[in-house]
Parts: sequence; structure tokens; C-alpha cells
Amino acid sequence: MIKAHDIYAAFDRISNMINHTPIMTSGILNNLSGKKLFFKCENFQKVGAFKYRGACNAILQNIEKAREFGVMTHSSGNHAQAIAKASQELGIKATIIMPRNAPQVKIDATRNSYGAKVVFCENTVESREKTATKLTKQNNYIFIHPYDNEFIIAGAGTAALELLKFKSNFDALIIPVGGGGLLSGSSIITKHLNSDIKIFAAEPENADDAYRSLHADKIIKNTTTDTIADGLRTNLSPLTFGIIKKNTDQVFRISEKDIIEAMRLIWERMKIIVEPSAAITLSAVLHKEFPDEIKNIGLILSGGNIDLSSFFDIS
Amino acid sequence: MIKAHDIYAAFDRISNMINHTPIMTSGILNNLSGKKLFFKCENFQKVGAFKYRGACNAILQNIEKAREFGVMTHSSGNHAQAIAKASQELGIKATIIMPRNAPQVKIDATRNSYGAKVVFCENTVESREKTATKLTKQNNYIFIHPYDNEFIIAGAGTAALELLKFKSNFDALIIPVGGGGLLSGSSIITKHLNSDIKIFAAEPENADDAYRSLHADKIIKNTTTDTIADGLRTNLSPLTFGIIKKNTDQVFRISEKDIIEAMRLIWERMKIIVEPSAAITLSAVLHKEFPDEIKNIGLILSGGNIDLSSFFDIS
Repeated sequence: MIKAHDIYAAFDRISNMINHTPIMTSGILNNLSGKKLFFKCENFQKVGAFKYRGACNAILQNIEKAREFGVMTHSSGNHAQAIAKASQELGIKATIIMPRNAPQVKIDATRNSYGAKVVFCENTVESREKTATKLTKQNNYIFIHPYDNEFIIAGAGTAALELLKFKSNFDALIIPVGGGGLLSGSSIITKHLNSDIKIFAAEPENADDAYRSLHADKIIKNTTTDTIADGLRTNLSPLTFGIIKKNTDQVFRISEKDIIEAMRLIWERMKIIVEPSAAITLSAVLHKEFPDEIKNIGLILSGGNIDLSSFFDIS
Repeated sequence: MIKAHDIYAAFDRISNMINHTPIMTSGILNNLSGKKLFFKCENFQKVGAFKYRGACNAILQNIEKAREFGVMTHSSGNHAQAIAKASQELGIKATIIMPRNAPQVKIDATRNSYGAKVVFCENTVESREKTATKLTKQNNYIFIHPYDNEFIIAGAGTAALELLKFKSNFDALIIPVGGGGLLSGSSIITKHLNSDIKIFAAEPENADDAYRSLHADKIIKNTTTDTIADGLRTNLSPLTFGIIKKNTDQVFRISEKDIIEAMRLIWERMKIIVEPSAAITLSAVLHKEFPDEIKNIGLILSGGNIDLSSFFDIS
């Protein structure tokens, strides 16, 4: 079981490798929401996403074997770049399995900028896992799962740790939930430091396995994953479900329209690029069921990797 | 004549009203350019542009009359919002003359968010100036020109002052040039603090009056203003031309394609929204004529106001 001290240990381990990202505020968004919002900007993290924290932690904790054989993962995006970049920084060989339909910007970054080997698979969980298992076995790689991994979760929790070092008296933290790694790590450190802080999760309506799993008290997988929030299409694992079940106070299910609207608000008003999976946290604040009494809110802006071609490509 | 002490005085006057904006770096853009780039992020300034600095300074230096009669300006965009917002903060009545074809996002911000009165005019310099002169006379307003105004120029120079307080040994500063207020103020304080620092201006090829004026040694107005960099369509004034002529080491003329490419690089790699008029500074660094020996470079990212409709409006 992951404890707060694992997150402190992760923070010490990765501290020299990561960006200690800024916490931004916006007068306009405070006025609009009637809240005090503190945005932890992991879009400014290396590789543009919080995933770099867990990647560094997972590699560093097993650095000798990683140096000898290399690391392997499967990912639809940010985790891939994170493993690739952390491996590059540490001089380690990385092999990444990606679905053929992953965003081009993420494939390019993984392969060209960070020098990892990319192996394509079909766009199903089965295909990913089968390919990963085969190649890991053949090559003795360290396999680093995107979220069903204690070191990934502990690394992910360091973003919330930095936020809580800055300000400890939030009424709530809002965290996006896909596979549940970020939510797990964030909730463990938050409840440890101040159990009065509510942990709210934000999840697309169209991939709402966390909401349904918590209500059913067992893992229920997504039947659709048709959401613009490409980082949140994954399912909880037994590991993350156990943690989230214990620590999560409420899950807000967000429509596609509300995700896009929140993303536009952040881009236009804060002048920063966040991806849909990050903007969903602001959607939760603006949700009609969001509790009135929750005023001081920390939002984890998980990343900023989004394909801008439709804006820039002039046909 | 504006001196360095006017910029120090402006800084003291406006210091409590403005954002002391961050200075960002990007490992990826350093690698790409082979330089060390320091971006002064005025896209994070209030109203999303450096113009707020000059607006505060110009109103504050004549605050009694401003309170009694109100202020007036004409602007195609950021200066309008700046005067409106500064007036709102100070409880002063503002009237803004805007061309009918100004970006909707700027009209909305000026009128709805900042509560100024907007009076529309035709999209010509003549129409703007005629309307402004008439209304100013009728109402005894303080007229605050977007750049042909010493207090506007001194206020604009405080962004470079902050940058130079952070780091004093740049090889060059790169500043966008439209009407020349930002370039004037930046160059005065820079040459005062360290005359070895080169002052480079970045200007659209399609509105290159500064380049042609400096080469002809007299003001030559734009014959076309067909550039995406909507903040840089204006002409130098006698006041700004005199300062720029003295302080500018080189003007880089940038194609529309290169402006857009630099904007995309900044959005994708730095995860911040900058407008074309700001991105043009990076285009200058990447220009084939940019001197090899200039390595440590400060870039003034002048603003981040851009209409995002084409990205977000799903037809």
C-alpha cells in the first residue's frame, strides 16, 4: 500500500529532474466562478504533463536494471513521452508501444524529440498489453505501466505535494481521473496532510468508469471512450480503484461541451495551453452540482499536449 | 525627451497596479535556435498585453483631471482594453474609439469586461483621429494616444526594465515594432543600463514602415498593413521615430509564414498563448540574417490576445 512517505521519497528522488511548476491564479476566473482557484500548472512540466514525475520516479527506483536492459511501456500519449524523455535524460534505452491512432504530435515527440523506439499496436487494451508482455519477456525490459504501478502513483502525487506546500488550507482539490494514477497519488498526500480537504475527481461523461465503479463498489469498465479528453479514456486498475474508493469524496461527470468550454476559458483568460484532460477540472468547478461552500480550490492542470493542426494548418 | 528616470518613475507609479510578469525559458527552443532565450511574458500582463503598463502610467500622471472628465483613446485592440481596465480599476470613465473590424474578442473585453464606452469608427487612421479629436474637444477628455505619448512610452519601457533587473548581460533584446512605443521605451532603458546590448526590432514584411523609415532617414508610412500581426499595423510617429532612430541596431522584416510558424512553436513548446505580434520576436531569432555571435537574448512577448474562434467553434 502506498503511503505519504512514499510520495515524500519520490519527491526527493525526482526533485533535480523535474520542473517545480508554477501555481497560477486568474482574477477573471475567480470572478466567473465565485471561488478562489489555484491552478497547479503541470502543462509546464517537462514533456508538457505531470506524467514526467512518475516516469522519473519509476526509472530511478530501479536504475541499475534500467541501465542494463532498458524500459518499456505502452501509452496513448503523455506517459509515452514521459518515459522517453526521462530515459533520454538518464541515458537509458526506452521502447514505447503506441496505438496507431495516437495524436501525431505525441508520436513525433516520443520518437523524434526524445529518441525512444516506438512500436505500434492496434488501438485496443488487449493489443497493447499483449505486445508489451511479449517484448518485455523477450528483452528483460523493466515494464512501467502508465498508472497501475506504485512508483508511478507516488511520483504523480508530488504535484499535489508541491501545491499543498504552497497552500495547505484548501477546501478541495480537483483532479482529473482516467486510469487513476494522478488521483491516487494526489489523494494520498492530501488526506495525509489535511483530511478536511475534499478530494473531487473530474471525469468525462463518455468515459465514466470511475463514477460507475465507485457507485457499484466494484470495477466497471468503460463501454465507450468517445471523449476529447484523450488522457482520460483508460480504466481504473485494482490498485487505483482501492485507493480512490477510500479517498474520493465526489466524482463530477463532465459533458464534452463543458470540457471544451472550460478549455477555451483557460486558453483565453489565462493565456496558457492546457489539454482537455486538464481543463476538465475547471468544468467541475462550474458544474451545477458543485457545492457552494467549497471556495478555496486547488486544480491540477495535468498537461498541455494537444494537436494544434486545426488552428495552424491553413488549407 | 524621455529619459531613463522617466521609466523608473513610471515603474514606481504603476508597480502596485501591474503584474510583474514571469520570465520563461524553454530548453527545446534553446536547442532549436542554438541560443539562450529569455521570454518576458507580457501575455500574462493584465488585459493580456504590455499596453496595461503605459495605460496605468498615463492615467496616473494626470489622475485629477482624469477623475473629473474621463479619458479617451482610439485603438485597434490591446491599448483599448488597457485604458478601459486601468480606468475601471481607478474608477475613471473611459471612452474608446475602435474600428468596426477590430477582433470581436477585443471589442467584448473592452466593453463587457472592463465597462468602457465603445464608439465605432471607420477602419482608417483619419476616421479614428477625427472622431477622437471631436469627442475629446466636446467633453474635455484626456486623450491618451496609443504610442505617440511620453507617458505611454515610459510605461511600456517598464517591461524591459523588469527583464534587465533579472538579467543585465544580454547580447540583445528583441522587440516588436508597430507604432514604436514599446520599442522606444525598451530601447531607452536598455541603452541606459548597458549600451552594449543590441536593440533589435521585429516587424512584419507587410507593414515595414520602421525598416523603410530608418533606411530613408525620414518617416515613410505603410502602404499595406496586410499582416496577421494586428498589433503591428500602425505607423511610427515623429516622437517614436526619433527615439528608434537613435537606439535601434537592426530591424528584421518577417514574413507572414514565419510569424505563424514562430507562434506555433511557442504555443506547442512553451504551452503559452501569444499573439502574432509577440511571436514575431522569435521569428527574428530564427531569421537567416540573425547574427551568429548574439547568444543571450531577451524577447519581449508583447501580448496574448488572439481570437480563438477558428479552433473552438465547431461548425
